[in-house]
Amino acid sequence: MKILDVRETTAKLQSNMRNAVIDFSRMTVGIVAVVTDVMRDGKPVIGYGCGSNGRYAQGGILRERLIPRLLEADPDDLLDENHENFDPFRVQACMMQNEKPGGHGDRAVAAAGVDMAIWDAVAKIEGKPLWRVFSERFNEGQYKNSVPVYPGGGYYYPGREIEQLQDEMRSYQEQGYRLCKMKIGGADLDTDRRRIEAALEVVGSGENLAVDANGRFDLDTALAFGEAMEPYRLAWFEEPGDPLDFALNTQLAQHYGQSIATGENLFSVQDAKNLALYAGMRPDLDWIQLDPALAYGATEFIKALGALRPLGWAPERHVPHGGHLLGLHLAAGLELGGTESYPLVFQPYGGFTDDAIIEDGATTPPEAPGLGVEQKADLYEVLKPLGEA
Amino acid sequence: MKILDVRETTAKLQSNMRNAVIDFSRMTVGIVAVVTDVMRDGKPVIGYGCGSNGRYAQGGILRERLIPRLLEADPDDLLDENHENFDPFRVQACMMQNEKPGGHGDRAVAAAGVDMAIWDAVAKIEGKPLWRVFSERFNEGQYKNSVPVYPGGGYYYPGREIEQLQDEMRSYQEQGYRLCKMKIGGADLDTDRRRIEAALEVVGSGENLAVDANGRFDLDTALAFGEAMEPYRLAWFEEPGDPLDFALNTQLAQHYGQSIATGENLFSVQDAKNLALYAGMRPDLDWIQLDPALAYGATEFIKALGALRPLGWAPERHVPHGGHLLGLHLAAGLELGGTESYPLVFQPYGGFTDDAIIEDGATTPPEAPGLGVEQKADLYEVLKPLGEA
Repeated sequence: MKILDVRETTAKLQSNMRNAVIDFSRMTVGIVAVVTDVMRDGKPVIGYGCGSNGRYAQGGILRERLIPRLLEADPDDLLDENHENFDPFRVQACMMQNEKPGGHGDRAVAAAGVDMAIWDAVAKIEGKPLWRVFSERFNEGQYKNSVPVYPGGGYYYPGREIEQLQDEMRSYQEQGYRLCKMKIGGADLDTDRRRIEAALEVVGSGENLAVDANGRFDLDTALAFGEAMEPYRLAWFEEPGDPLDFALNTQLAQHYGQSIATGENLFSVQDAKNLALYAGMRPDLDWIQLDPALAYGATEFIKALGALRPLGWAPERHVPHGGHLLGLHLAAGLELGGTESYPLVFQPYGGFTDDAIIEDGATTPPEAPGLGVEQKADLYEVLKPLGEA
Repeated sequence: MKILDVRETTAKLQSNMRNAVIDFSRMTVGIVAVVTDVMRDGKPVIGYGCGSNGRYAQGGILRERLIPRLLEADPDDLLDENHENFDPFRVQACMMQNEKPGGHGDRAVAAAGVDMAIWDAVAKIEGKPLWRVFSERFNEGQYKNSVPVYPGGGYYYPGREIEQLQDEMRSYQEQGYRLCKMKIGGADLDTDRRRIEAALEVVGSGENLAVDANGRFDLDTALAFGEAMEPYRLAWFEEPGDPLDFALNTQLAQHYGQSIATGENLFSVQDAKNLALYAGMRPDLDWIQLDPALAYGATEFIKALGALRPLGWAPERHVPHGGHLLGLHLAAGLELGGTESYPLVFQPYGGFTDDAIIEDGATTPPEAPGLGVEQKADLYEVLKPLGEA
């Protein structure tokens, strides 16, 4: 049993939106295919993976460092003890040979794409949906059959701020979502307050509305927004400041009595531990939003879950960023709080399988073996040529 | 006044050594040339830069993200207010457009190479050595004419541990160095203790010997080594644990009464602030070792110096990692505690100008305009074809 090839290429994100920090029109994403010599249903098992949005394709790091290490490894070193399947933890260790500790950024994105493809292959070899593999290996067989999902959206619409935001929120409600998220920080506080109140009219109550500042605020602005938003009792206030500004987050948490959510721009177990230790985050109130498709993959996410548990963070308090299939499988199999969803943007990488139904703010994880990319037609159309080339 | 081209390529490091964590034989380094339309001495000013060791060349990030942004910018946006020179801070802001906050790793290495080349060009345009530019702009004209330097070395020599380590330390002393650094953590504590005592015989006293664990130890091992080494009163105990394991560092600092040094694997102002805030580091005793040639360049280093000063960290407590010319210029112009030196390894990127004399553990910064790469023949031989192509 061995990996025959690891292929990667760079694709464009179909997204013209921008948030408070970046313009996505020139954003790229890396896609990965791991071709194995394992046969299932008369065909070789091919694992597929991709990065998440916001951090660009990482072809250089993949071609020059991570992929050569995998292809040069003794194939047995990448297998589990019984040589019955690939071992994602050993694959990660192999990719990280001769990499120094610290500096978790683009490298974590590169590794995440390969890791996703490896887990897809592992689950296909087991003949199970990936969430079931996670559940059996790491959660004593427990899982969520109904996973809370919420759309990341709520964009700015210059000139038609209120009406179009309400239209967007209404469309999510009609699709079956309950909790929705909207951007803040791209306008002044008064404008954002009007936008929040307009969104609340549609979603009904604060528990159905989260706001996302995309790491834009300094301390004073974060505190001012926090004070203004506290009466709305929102679901959460996301990424108020720089993702590494633990001091800012601590001070905000001392003043803002409602939930804070952050973590999508942290890329390792160690950074996640520091967030839990130093950022004033409250395990009974706040949310951690690591993105496994940016941060060394499900393998690192599972390690982070284990490292944060003794610090008081139950799996229920994790809600992965990224709106992709991997987040859904992790949320289902490890009983996380939920996962993000991207009905409108970051296609075809965002979103779930084509048959996914959103009902009362939740969805059911897919049943096909693996990650389910073959059941998401637009995504498979991009991935298939790489794997079957 | 404008940048005509930014060129980059990948080069090999001449190094067969390995430390406790990585094998350097396949390590690469990125080199950068910034070609300008400014004429000095009848020739266009070309700024040269390179990454530091340990983090690989970053051609993908440079070609796909950072360089296009510079070449597409309005040239005036990269100049200082009077349009008399390039402004490295504006250049950094331009390179970082559409980059999300957090995740400071390979991107920081890529940006550092360009930043070094920009500062080289800025100083050449001013007709001054770079240390003098730093001194005049950021240190009220004060500088160190005699900069403490120490060789990073003290390698493992399987089979001839003691004799060859002593030979290496003796050779540094003969070259004029006083403080030397040696690796630990590649062997058990007893072996390392014998190696330390052997090195002390040559360098004379603990204040002339630092030890470097390259981030390898867990807490128990760090504490055990700390306890065993405390009586030697060493210059410092470098990178005891994972560079982001602030909790480990805090606990070690509570038990180890001698100096700790770390920071070479942190890549941003924000990470450096977190080190100062959460890692138990003692500003009267410990050392911070950011590597400007890995971490977004001198521009970010200067910001970090400013951010850490109100937290109690004087410039004197900074000793840049990397053993390159940039560290020497920063140490001289900003009156840092000193800088690393690589007499044996990481050539031709490590080391100072060819005429540098090490005397009593210190050296004098170069007088030629710019960084001085033209006065380091082996380095200029690699860089020149890129700039003058």
